[in-house]
Amino acid sequence: MGEFDLIDKYFKRPVTRNALGIGDDCALLAPAAGMQLAVSSDMLVEGRHFLSTVEPSRLGHKALAVNLSDLAACGARPLAFTLALSMPQADEAWLEPFSRGLLALADEYACELVGGDTTRGPLTICITVFGEVPTGQALLRSGARAGDDIYASGTLGEARLALEAFRGSVSLPVEAFQRARARMEEPAPRVALGEALRGVATAAIDVSDGLLGDLGHILRGSGVGARIDTATAAGLMDPVCAAALDEDRRLEYALAGGDDYELLFTAPASSRGAVQEAARQAGTPVTRIGSIEAAAGLRLVDAAGQPLQRRYGSFDHFA
Amino acid sequence: MGEFDLIDKYFKRPVTRNALGIGDDCALLAPAAGMQLAVSSDMLVEGRHFLSTVEPSRLGHKALAVNLSDLAACGARPLAFTLALSMPQADEAWLEPFSRGLLALADEYACELVGGDTTRGPLTICITVFGEVPTGQALLRSGARAGDDIYASGTLGEARLALEAFRGSVSLPVEAFQRARARMEEPAPRVALGEALRGVATAAIDVSDGLLGDLGHILRGSGVGARIDTATAAGLMDPVCAAALDEDRRLEYALAGGDDYELLFTAPASSRGAVQEAARQAGTPVTRIGSIEAAAGLRLVDAAGQPLQRRYGSFDHFA
Repeated sequence: MGEFDLIDKYFKRPVTRNALGIGDDCALLAPAAGMQLAVSSDMLVEGRHFLSTVEPSRLGHKALAVNLSDLAACGARPLAFTLALSMPQADEAWLEPFSRGLLALADEYACELVGGDTTRGPLTICITVFGEVPTGQALLRSGARAGDDIYASGTLGEARLALEAFRGSVSLPVEAFQRARARMEEPAPRVALGEALRGVATAAIDVSDGLLGDLGHILRGSGVGARIDTATAAGLMDPVCAAALDEDRRLEYALAGGDDYELLFTAPASSRGAVQEAARQAGTPVTRIGSIEAAAGLRLVDAAGQPLQRRYGSFDHFA
Repeated sequence: MGEFDLIDKYFKRPVTRNALGIGDDCALLAPAAGMQLAVSSDMLVEGRHFLSTVEPSRLGHKALAVNLSDLAACGARPLAFTLALSMPQADEAWLEPFSRGLLALADEYACELVGGDTTRGPLTICITVFGEVPTGQALLRSGARAGDDIYASGTLGEARLALEAFRGSVSLPVEAFQRARARMEEPAPRVALGEALRGVATAAIDVSDGLLGDLGHILRGSGVGARIDTATAAGLMDPVCAAALDEDRRLEYALAGGDDYELLFTAPASSRGAVQEAARQAGTPVTRIGSIEAAAGLRLVDAAGQPLQRRYGSFDHFA
């Protein structure tokens, strides 16, 4: 199968929203009046972002999900994406499920594949995603203010748990392993929550490198500090997964595990009702895990309000 | 050096045109009123799109140039780009010249780096570029009509010649090698020509897979056939390079070499003056190499107008 047959068979679909889809030199996009286009790119490399054991349909899902998660963190609604794909050979047994998983998630968010590139090389997936957000309403990392509450959506730490199980450093009961693995391989981007938080959250980011590391981006971007109730944050781990771990690991995976694709955001204490209403609308639970403080730095406290001594690293591809 | 230091040091620059540049979850873009956003992605893989012998600043140039070439083929003016970069380690001796070559070309076209991703993995560069074009004026592959002239810009075949010289299948005098190598490693995207051809050309594409293969995309997109004067097309090779080759190779490299990043376009015979005026404005020579015909298929003729028997393949990453 040649390059163009491959594109036609697995990736070319009728394009409805955009002036021009796959098959010309460029795709043409125009956000609606009063809208800005939010743009994000993520690259997934075999052995680094996914294991060779992953089922290709789940990989297709995840490759788009991590990009949609960036749109969610800006409060943008998905519109379209491009896919650049490098792979060792044109393997239909891989392409069929990969494109199926990818396009199923795309359909769920009415996000159209409008262009891209395919080439031979190490298995690498680069997606650039486009969303729209009313001008001036994007959720940024720079809007957190002293006194704001800090929230996390959903659950934390399961993806890291699955990774450690694959590495053999923890052994898990079957159900815990399956739940953790699904979280690692098929994360649900919090798009509806991001949209619902427009005008409510003061700052937001998605948790990809670990809760504390990603919180650090908000703190630096906003010029503030924070206090985190670590027991509450660690309590966000899926209970079946949490039951398989001692407290130290539960804390570490929830606070610094990474690959969670939950939203971490801030909102004024006066907006607690509005935050819970946004969560209800989106069907995604959110939990208050701390507060923004004027003094720089990150203070971790335990359930009794006592400072935690332990330090947690954030994921860095080159550290 | 960590991931975020690396981004700060080599890739973060003041962003002027866009609402939000590097450092948030998304970049925010808004085309001006009456404009569409033209979007294209290209992925470059070591060993496939570039050799490990390439000087990193030239690689930085080329990675953006091949994307700007897609904008040129649509008649779009460059605005911004994202960069996703996978590399085996954070090597400053590589990053410094790579980012310098990349950003020098970006500056030349006022095309801002607004976001992206860096990760560890095989050396792979994925750029997504954004340009703007007045709504309805993009040059497409589907607009060629019987009777239109066919043109190519600049020169053809030198990049393939350089590749063959690196492979050892041809040996070249020093000057020819240097000229061919510069064309392979630092192609000049025909952005000014693409813009000047708005409203003049009926169809356009950039030559990346080889002249005849890329012409095939226009013929299929437009539902037409063509006749190509192969002697004129092969005569477009840089004369110093051409002097080093026999006629057979000259024809093959010019017609099917690939990696040229010239524009191949069509225009009505009544627009010959306008085409030459566009070429003059852009400072890029263009040459008429054939004509569009109603009958499907591609007819190659020699200088005497006789059919050529030889067939030429187009580059396909998976063939």
